[in-house]
Amino acid sequence: MRTQPPSLLSLAVDASVLHLSHFSDLSPLPDHILLDLFLKRTLRAGKLNEKILKLFLATGKEEVLSLIQTLNIQHILTPVLPTKSPKMSVVNNIEDGEIDIVIGALHSDLRPFMSAWKSIFSRYHLIIVKDPDLKDDLQIPEGLSFKIDIYTKSHIDKVVGSSTSIAFSGYSCKYFGFLVSRKKYVVSIDDDCVPAKDADSFLIDPVAQHLRNLATPATPFFFNTLYDPYRNGADFVRGYPFSLRSGVTCALSCGLWLNLADLDAPTQALKPEKRNSRYVDAVMTIPARVMMPISGINIAFNRELVGPALCPALRLTGEGKVRWETMEDIWSGMCVKVVCDHLGLGVKSGLPYVWRNDRGDAIESLKKEWEGVKLMEEVVPWFQSMVLSRTATTTEDCVAEMAKRVKEQLGGSDPGFGRAAEAMMDWVELWKKVGSGPSPV
Amino acid sequence: MRTQPPSLLSLAVDASVLHLSHFSDLSPLPDHILLDLFLKRTLRAGKLNEKILKLFLATGKEEVLSLIQTLNIQHILTPVLPTKSPKMSVVNNIEDGEIDIVIGALHSDLRPFMSAWKSIFSRYHLIIVKDPDLKDDLQIPEGLSFKIDIYTKSHIDKVVGSSTSIAFSGYSCKYFGFLVSRKKYVVSIDDDCVPAKDADSFLIDPVAQHLRNLATPATPFFFNTLYDPYRNGADFVRGYPFSLRSGVTCALSCGLWLNLADLDAPTQALKPEKRNSRYVDAVMTIPARVMMPISGINIAFNRELVGPALCPALRLTGEGKVRWETMEDIWSGMCVKVVCDHLGLGVKSGLPYVWRNDRGDAIESLKKEWEGVKLMEEVVPWFQSMVLSRTATTTEDCVAEMAKRVKEQLGGSDPGFGRAAEAMMDWVELWKKVGSGPSPV
Repeated sequence: MRTQPPSLLSLAVDASVLHLSHFSDLSPLPDHILLDLFLKRTLRAGKLNEKILKLFLATGKEEVLSLIQTLNIQHILTPVLPTKSPKMSVVNNIEDGEIDIVIGALHSDLRPFMSAWKSIFSRYHLIIVKDPDLKDDLQIPEGLSFKIDIYTKSHIDKVVGSSTSIAFSGYSCKYFGFLVSRKKYVVSIDDDCVPAKDADSFLIDPVAQHLRNLATPATPFFFNTLYDPYRNGADFVRGYPFSLRSGVTCALSCGLWLNLADLDAPTQALKPEKRNSRYVDAVMTIPARVMMPISGINIAFNRELVGPALCPALRLTGEGKVRWETMEDIWSGMCVKVVCDHLGLGVKSGLPYVWRNDRGDAIESLKKEWEGVKLMEEVVPWFQSMVLSRTATTTEDCVAEMAKRVKEQLGGSDPGFGRAAEAMMDWVELWKKVGSGPSPV
Repeated sequence: MRTQPPSLLSLAVDASVLHLSHFSDLSPLPDHILLDLFLKRTLRAGKLNEKILKLFLATGKEEVLSLIQTLNIQHILTPVLPTKSPKMSVVNNIEDGEIDIVIGALHSDLRPFMSAWKSIFSRYHLIIVKDPDLKDDLQIPEGLSFKIDIYTKSHIDKVVGSSTSIAFSGYSCKYFGFLVSRKKYVVSIDDDCVPAKDADSFLIDPVAQHLRNLATPATPFFFNTLYDPYRNGADFVRGYPFSLRSGVTCALSCGLWLNLADLDAPTQALKPEKRNSRYVDAVMTIPARVMMPISGINIAFNRELVGPALCPALRLTGEGKVRWETMEDIWSGMCVKVVCDHLGLGVKSGLPYVWRNDRGDAIESLKKEWEGVKLMEEVVPWFQSMVLSRTATTTEDCVAEMAKRVKEQLGGSDPGFGRAAEAMMDWVELWKKVGSGPSPV
């Protein structure tokens, strides 16, 4: 744009940058030159270092100080570099050793599932929990190089005993894996899913994306129209308050599904050919106090922060072995969301996608799952209006308080709610007893 | 899947479908056969008509009735077909004649802008409002086949007079177009934008997408993880309450931007090379009570419902002619969002994208726009906590009530808020006087 020769002033400012570290006081400079020097010549040119930052701070000029604060320019802290063992790699500053992949096995032949995921899972420790109703032995490919712990009915009986109201059958079996995990992060994917491909047909690594979602802050207090501002290439949109930009810790990452979308039985029965083929290249924070149907098909969470809130509580009378016959994940999802809102944690939804294979007959399911569809009418407004008390400061506190309220406020309208309340109580107790410390199995 | 020969029962049910219209009573059938007949053989086969619907309704079976209700199957209403004039076409059930395209001209040479949009705009009526500060004559390509009304300072002076606190200069000039429009829908796009291309490099028609967003319901009371359930190919996810699926009227559609993202001056100044290249193929409803930075660059709205809430109110002292120097749209956006939440209307964000061309120097702007960034820290929590009184039943009521509160609650902290309150009051009066009825110009 500039066609005229540079001014004397601009030449002087240019020259001063080269000697900036020799100056001891910048305060005599007029404000607009100081700002120009700081932004255009120093920041843009990548010349800001500790010493020069101090020099600008020392001017005491309000504009410069606000700018430094707004852009969140920090004094450099000497980082503590993690010791990298040969078997440990680091994704998004999370070490592989901090992650458990938990799989609930509802089918005995896990070979197709495991081969599809082999290249992705091989870096991590796997927990496979066999549905206690499943009679046949699990079939797992031989010669896998990675560590798998398999838990069956006998382990569940040993750890949980018969004194609990929690049923770990069907999709609920994976919650046993959440309980016995000792890792900071858990990634859990249904056994009828395989890794999806992105819009350019490249295979997605859903674990890496989940970890990216969990490792970067969530922004639940104001919606960013360009989606997750912490993704590469994204940022906060004009008007987004700077004080909210540092966000909060993300505790739960909810992935999505291509092919068989996670519809309910009536919808899938009416539209049997319907498949989801739209790959939406976005992750976003679900705003605080907004409820959503969190599906358990493809999720990851910070177990240390919200583990006890992922509870197998609501079971339908006619619950079966296909997703649309269950409600446990939707219920548990609303519990986690309420807990996150209360404790100031974030929930993200969007990427990564998995590819869901077809399973089950929606019309057959419709005869069973009707009940779940009806319960939601009551459950959603109830969760939406929930405000937990200030004394609930941990996830365990929150779940216990919710359990109490479920019993008192919903228990009368459907016996399923009463059972859910009891299971939540038992779950909190179980978590306190065996959710940490030495492995119970 | 079925390899066995069909059962006698299934053959009988198949045969019965052919003769369904001859039956007068289905109630003796067992429930599961009735459900099978209704869902698999009738609905799926596309054989449901008015007579057969009555037959199923007459059974009085609860499962069938719930299903009909849940799937929102309605008696057919004979549609009133619009009279289609040769110059009128219909997109998304909205006639071209119901739409005004409003452009605020901040630059005199509109020829590149108009040629880029020609094929898209040619079906509609255009309102161009020339920035009163702009001295040169507008340059518009000759030989355009579509109707354009151009408004200048003299029209503004005639309609608004000097008795108002509203300044229609800069980006605010387009609000004059909103005021004098007499159409149900307004689409407004900044004059530095051209139509974008989608992920497959096909040219997007942003107007058609905006109208689609406005013509289909919004779902602000529960978040649908697969985004706008009313898009082709999308649906409600398992767990979404059926009672919330019919949604509410969408009053505002906020589009996004490729290339120059709508960042604030500090962010753009720090990252001068930053451009937005991610095309996210999604539209979503912004949940009720969630605030967001609504940008005025690329929006469409239902003028009949929320027109008076799009008000040119907050002006910065050093406001200029590039977007990052303004706050009027962010402020007005929060007003509209509060109004929509209060009146039970919806706001969507996402598609369509426009391509924003570079304009202005962020660092130069930073010296002016600083003020806006600071104001947001106060404004956002204030809007977030706003609950309007029950007596506010129209958009005008809501804006007037907000104006009063701005004056009382924010007026003391910054003189800009006091002026904004006054402008909002004047805007409501102006809207009442000349916002409807015969055109004031």
